Amino acid sequence: MKGKRLLKTVAVALVMGVSYISLGSVLESEPAFSNLIPVPREVLVGEGRFRIDDTFTVKVSGEPDERMYPAASRFLRRLDQRTGLFLPQDYVEKGENLSEVGLEIVVERPGQVNLGEEESYHLSVTAAGVRIEAETDLGAMHGLETLLQLLSADDRGYYFPVSSISDMPRFPWRGLMIDSARHFMPLDVIKRNLDGMAAVKMNVLHWHLTEDQGFRVEVKSYPKLHEMGSDGMFYTQDQLKEIVAYASDRGIRVYPEFDVPGHATAWLVGHPEMASLPGPYEIERGWGIFDPTLDPTKDVVYEILEAVFTEMAAIFPDEYFHIGGDENEGHHWDKADHIQAFMKERGIADNHQLQSYFNKRLIPILDELGKKMVGWDEILQPDMPTNIMIHSWRGQDSMVAAAKAGYSSILSNGYYIDLMQPASDHYLVDPLPADIDLNEDQRSRVYGGEATMWSEHVTVETIDSRIWPRTAAIAERLWSDQSVDDVEDMYRRLDTIALQLEELGLTHLKNRAMMMRRLAGGYETEPLRVLADVVEPLKIYRRNSDLSYRSYSPYTLLPDVAVADAKDARRFGALVDQYLEMGGAEDKAAIRAQLEEWSENHTALSQLAARSPALREALPLSEALRDLAELALSSLDGEATESAAILERAREPVAKVELQVVDAVERLLAK
Amino acid sequence: MKGKRLLKTVAVALVMGVSYISLGSVLESEPAFSNLIPVPREVLVGEGRFRIDDTFTVKVSGEPDERMYPAASRFLRRLDQRTGLFLPQDYVEKGENLSEVGLEIVVERPGQVNLGEEESYHLSVTAAGVRIEAETDLGAMHGLETLLQLLSADDRGYYFPVSSISDMPRFPWRGLMIDSARHFMPLDVIKRNLDGMAAVKMNVLHWHLTEDQGFRVEVKSYPKLHEMGSDGMFYTQDQLKEIVAYASDRGIRVYPEFDVPGHATAWLVGHPEMASLPGPYEIERGWGIFDPTLDPTKDVVYEILEAVFTEMAAIFPDEYFHIGGDENEGHHWDKADHIQAFMKERGIADNHQLQSYFNKRLIPILDELGKKMVGWDEILQPDMPTNIMIHSWRGQDSMVAAAKAGYSSILSNGYYIDLMQPASDHYLVDPLPADIDLNEDQRSRVYGGEATMWSEHVTVETIDSRIWPRTAAIAERLWSDQSVDDVEDMYRRLDTIALQLEELGLTHLKNRAMMMRRLAGGYETEPLRVLADVVEPLKIYRRNSDLSYRSYSPYTLLPDVAVADAKDARRFGALVDQYLEMGGAEDKAAIRAQLEEWSENHTALSQLAARSPALREALPLSEALRDLAELALSSLDGEATESAAILERAREPVAKVELQVVDAVERLLAK
Repeated sequence: MKGKRLLKTVAVALVMGVSYISLGSVLESEPAFSNLIPVPREVLVGEGRFRIDDTFTVKVSGEPDERMYPAASRFLRRLDQRTGLFLPQDYVEKGENLSEVGLEIVVERPGQVNLGEEESYHLSVTAAGVRIEAETDLGAMHGLETLLQLLSADDRGYYFPVSSISDMPRFPWRGLMIDSARHFMPLDVIKRNLDGMAAVKMNVLHWHLTEDQGFRVEVKSYPKLHEMGSDGMFYTQDQLKEIVAYASDRGIRVYPEFDVPGHATAWLVGHPEMASLPGPYEIERGWGIFDPTLDPTKDVVYEILEAVFTEMAAIFPDEYFHIGGDENEGHHWDKADHIQAFMKERGIADNHQLQSYFNKRLIPILDELGKKMVGWDEILQPDMPTNIMIHSWRGQDSMVAAAKAGYSSILSNGYYIDLMQPASDHYLVDPLPADIDLNEDQRSRVYGGEATMWSEHVTVETIDSRIWPRTAAIAERLWSDQSVDDVEDMYRRLDTIALQLEELGLTHLKNRAMMMRRLAGGYETEPLRVLADVVEPLKIYRRNSDLSYRSYSPYTLLPDVAVADAKDARRFGALVDQYLEMGGAEDKAAIRAQLEEWSENHTALSQLAARSPALREALPLSEALRDLAELALSSLDGEATESAAILERAREPVAKVELQVVDAVERLLAK
Repeated sequence: MKGKRLLKTVAVALVMGVSYISLGSVLESEPAFSNLIPVPREVLVGEGRFRIDDTFTVKVSGEPDERMYPAASRFLRRLDQRTGLFLPQDYVEKGENLSEVGLEIVVERPGQVNLGEEESYHLSVTAAGVRIEAETDLGAMHGLETLLQLLSADDRGYYFPVSSISDMPRFPWRGLMIDSARHFMPLDVIKRNLDGMAAVKMNVLHWHLTEDQGFRVEVKSYPKLHEMGSDGMFYTQDQLKEIVAYASDRGIRVYPEFDVPGHATAWLVGHPEMASLPGPYEIERGWGIFDPTLDPTKDVVYEILEAVFTEMAAIFPDEYFHIGGDENEGHHWDKADHIQAFMKERGIADNHQLQSYFNKRLIPILDELGKKMVGWDEILQPDMPTNIMIHSWRGQDSMVAAAKAGYSSILSNGYYIDLMQPASDHYLVDPLPADIDLNEDQRSRVYGGEATMWSEHVTVETIDSRIWPRTAAIAERLWSDQSVDDVEDMYRRLDTIALQLEELGLTHLKNRAMMMRRLAGGYETEPLRVLADVVEPLKIYRRNSDLSYRSYSPYTLLPDVAVADAKDARRFGALVDQYLEMGGAEDKAAIRAQLEEWSENHTALSQLAARSPALREALPLSEALRDLAELALSSLDGEATESAAILERAREPVAKVELQVVDAVERLLAK
């Protein structure tokens, strides 16, 4: 197979039986190649199409793990649900005697769902059929996801375009952290997000299970932990096992986090004897950093932790185990005389050293259970052994420091999807930027990264729209070649994957419509949609800077309908830039039409708000948008208007959101 | 409190401190009274409003069951999620010391979730606050649902209108049957539908758990039943208990159905020794009535049934237990020599008598477990004892016969929501029509009815849109006074409750948008929406008359997007009738606008179909709609056109759906 390299931002595309000259037109007629996310390592583009009809079957050969068969069956169902074809095969089974299969999957050996397992695959589509070859079923499942992304249609029906794809991940640790502790997330939320992760080739679920606001797992030896610390919202051990199995079936590791010694109020409700200061304690309802802290001087603390870790180690087979360790300010340690005495007696100089003492007492417990300790940056203290892993949330510097000191690490700084930053911000964060000051050995210990879905401000209704589709951009960063970094192209592909993710039950698109109907108090929601598509929720930690939110507050208002990448705002900004560069009449007309829609929207939204008081707090913003639009329209008409006050007002946050079109209007005015 | 009766189709409204003359305007300014579903027994309408602000709290007094507290907490969350108010109370707890509560709930005694338990409530709203009084928490929870339906808004914010409502159900058995056997339904589907049931005051979940296509419960004594009979899709016993508890918390009984001796193929996969003819057996993938049948002559059959029933009796505390018994045609009995010999030996004349023999052997098993047998019509044979209950599916006649013979009964004939009939068809079916030929004693044994959600043609994605909102019409029939029967008003209220049901996680509205995006292969779905809103899936048993469907077929196409009450078709029909009666120019213009939309839609839909082959089978229908619309437009313009061929074509089913606007166009043409 001869190939000629084509430079393209998106795909490392090579030609297969196609002249270099015609490749552009092939890519144009086969848009599926440009929609792949994450971008594969190598794509050889051919000419021709393998047609899918209602005789299409799948055969699995070789020696895969048993998970391969249901995975192939799920592939069939997704294929027939998209195409509407009545495919003949009910379940793909071992040793089936099929002639003329549409897809053959050949797997050398069972995959182990462990860090570093082989995940590569080779996918080839010819006019006669499709073949996926992989060393393990984990790789083969990645190949199935790529194949589904290649599904195409023409006037004759559905087909896969002829191609040859060789693919493997850049990083072995491509994770999503879900915080089920602050807002409890039922099993179906976790399951559908595992499906979403698999669709973009992520392979680690980091499950944050305890917090000040909730202790979310059943502990048989100390049942007061979940009985008193969860408001009845916890996972039974059977349910935890169900998730581990569900994830493993999709090639995804699951490892738990039990955040200690801080973030631990919920532990203390049932077991105040674990606390640094006397109780009683109540489940925390607010958001922030709280003082209740486990007492590192008491044996009972280690006894209970050992019991909990032991029960959990039996449920989570993964070799990694996260003990949190973040944001312990030690205020309660400072106030406890016996702790101060303990420190003095042992020559423990400060709270950092005391936390190190605490962490070091956990290491033998985890060792005994065959687990490697993972903790947030703060656990990195000079005297910690290097067989622990550092989870960097405070910045790349701490990651570099950890790697230099001999630790393995993963990155989450830059991947905090709860902060409602645009996908582009996350996309350009690289765990190993080209200029990072690490040698090859040190680099090899940077395993990858994790998107973190902290759940202060998300609920069952909104969590999917915070995770997706932005997390697909992070998944690509961790899977694809470093050179894949075209932001506009990433956004284009996010739009496509967002649709495909819906078929897995994810609610990122459909819940928004429901939430708008509730907020508008009726079926008519278009004026609200117009506003919601140009605003974004307050970012970073500004949403709750007034501490107005509690765990039971309504997350059903405008900031919850809005998403991190306001669609119309992004489109408008691009349109303005194009117009400013090219000065086209068509662009100008499009800008005008958009501005007129915004200008007229305020009246329509006010009518909705007349019946729905929950909407009223958004009206000043809608008014600001109208004024901004009218200002811009005047400017387009060549009229000079005083703009400073209008721009200033349009920049002010209202109802916990902010308009995202002010900069673009300002650019337009400056023309 | 003086009251004057007002005749109104919807509510038995009475006046409270309002002159009779002004009542009409009160109802106009308080539309919430006209939105209640099911309509309460007595509504006293007052003047004034109780304002809800962010100090609103709830207090529970008296001696309710523990379930009352989380129920009151859920009420608070639904209230703040709708209103956006940051209510101060996290959880409603026993013995809270609250001053100035917004709502006080007073309950005399704990409710028992059993047939016939007291469910009445009294709800009073004054300008100073709300009070719900009930003998049991079951009644109080109904009162909370009514109160949420009363939520109103004006320019000052949210409020409840002053009123006094006394309410109680007409029938004690108001059920929904969910078939989790043909298509397996995960726990979250069951849970959200239980919430939906509670919202319209239904109180029985009849859970159909075994079928030819699947044995869906874990059986510890005979694990091959679920291991080999379910494709891995079954409920563990813990999960069954979870559902029973979840339902009980909402005042809903759950009783299981194990359909025997027919509909039992899935039992035989793991236990062929239970079959009438030698195996092996495979899980059935088609839909229909199948021959595999339990062998009534073998002791092992009763041993296994006793073991299954015993395990299930420990999980389902309800006193009723459904053994199915329907549609056994006995073909395998006819073919089995040993069964024929057995019949001859015992003087069993025919298969009906043999099934009676079988059923009678189950009675002592159920007696021993403290359960009353329920079965479909067919179990009613002359020699059956009268302590069994007859579930009537074949018609009212069988129900009357059962009542006359001394049996208790419930009705499902007329409530088969899987048959995709309009809500009006179900709404007008009454378990006890005024002219029924039964005396008072016999009437007292007609306990109520059940909507039946058979799941051949529904999946996780579509089941909610088949159950809701139509089932609310059946719920009203079973709860409200017999005189409440205005079809147009019912449809108006269904539109309102459909929105409110969304807040419970039900997907009847939002999944449709998702399914249209998948079917259209993109975000643009409006042309598909236009078509989908005038078609309905083939009704009764016509959808699968060609036997094209299997359990794993794609249910993601036009008939799955369509619902039983095509919205635009219903609206258009009413518009045409109004125009024909009144001849208004405005109606004529509206008709013309609608016809023009349909006329133009075909081109737009064809463009969508160009990228989405799954849509193409719908194009002939879209074309027929265009031709029909153009025919009607010509007629409006006074042009005579040959119509027979166009009408005939428009009546033809295409792609498993049919146009619902042909009659209206024909009426228009006949003008």
